[in-house]
Amino acid sequence: MEETVRTLGILQARHFSARLDCVRLRNGKLTERIKLDHPEAAAIVPFLDPHRILMVRQWRYALGAETMEIPAGKVDPGEEVKVCAGRELFEETGYRARNLIEIFSYYPAIGYSDEVIRIYAASGLEKVSEREDVDEISRVEVVEFGALNDMIMKGAIRDGKTVLGISLFRARLEEGDIPEDFFR
Amino acid sequence: MEETVRTLGILQARHFSARLDCVRLRNGKLTERIKLDHPEAAAIVPFLDPHRILMVRQWRYALGAETMEIPAGKVDPGEEVKVCAGRELFEETGYRARNLIEIFSYYPAIGYSDEVIRIYAASGLEKVSEREDVDEISRVEVVEFGALNDMIMKGAIRDGKTVLGISLFRARLEEGDIPEDFFR
Repeated sequence: MEETVRTLGILQARHFSARLDCVRLRNGKLTERIKLDHPEAAAIVPFLDPHRILMVRQWRYALGAETMEIPAGKVDPGEEVKVCAGRELFEETGYRARNLIEIFSYYPAIGYSDEVIRIYAASGLEKVSEREDVDEISRVEVVEFGALNDMIMKGAIRDGKTVLGISLFRARLEEGDIPEDFFR
Repeated sequence: MEETVRTLGILQARHFSARLDCVRLRNGKLTERIKLDHPEAAAIVPFLDPHRILMVRQWRYALGAETMEIPAGKVDPGEEVKVCAGRELFEETGYRARNLIEIFSYYPAIGYSDEVIRIYAASGLEKVSEREDVDEISRVEVVEFGALNDMIMKGAIRDGKTVLGISLFRARLEEGDIPEDFFR
């Protein structure tokens, strides 16, 4: 294991923070590590029907580019991750989901972040309003699920949680892990 | 798009840095964003033969836990990503690879990092020494490729690049994207 010797600096944003720590390795040597203390996050693969999902276009400051992603967001303090999934889907697309099933939970960036992303599939969607998150989401798009594999393989979709969500939903479907009434 | 108003703080580690920026959203509102300036990275799915890959056990400070992963690491200044893939494989396992083919390139954490991970598959492995990176890698393990899907589905492997590397190698194999001589 690696032991924290001392924290050299902290950056505090509204929802999470970054620390620079002096760390002792197993062999006794000292090194420095950046660590993000990040709340859990939820991402949603939202099915309009068995063949089409909703995706969002969003400006990503860290990349300096717009991306096409599945809806996602950070858990609020005290919020259940599944509740967060429904809330983020609603805020980013204006849709509510009747069914939300967990398909996978993973660490996106273990080199520097403790973030866990829990991916859900959603069905029984109903549009209840326009999207609320107009600050960050520029457009909601309907995409053929069957076209996504090709988009991933060609590099048109390169966001980790989106690629994982789509790939693992398909894997669960092939293995019979998705309940039969999910699309009803 | 979102515009940087000013940088409020920087943490500088040896290989990358974290910034806290004041940012103007499209609607004119101000907010704060943490952004990691990270070098490109390479990850490798190293095949001993068509049925077995090498994985490494590694302590991850950000998680406070040991993980089981495919070998990976950051590009050195001026280094080609493919060269980095071969070097990291060697340092973490002691093996050199005759073949390295790129299978996917993606953004692991677009909410706060510009990191790109380029995933390679390696074959024609030859053990040339013991692993060099004894500071960080605690053990090299041989794992049946056929067992990995089950390990992923059960949550025994939860590292993003590892899950993506394994899933997308399998997808490329099924689509006939892996050269016929890769395993020769």
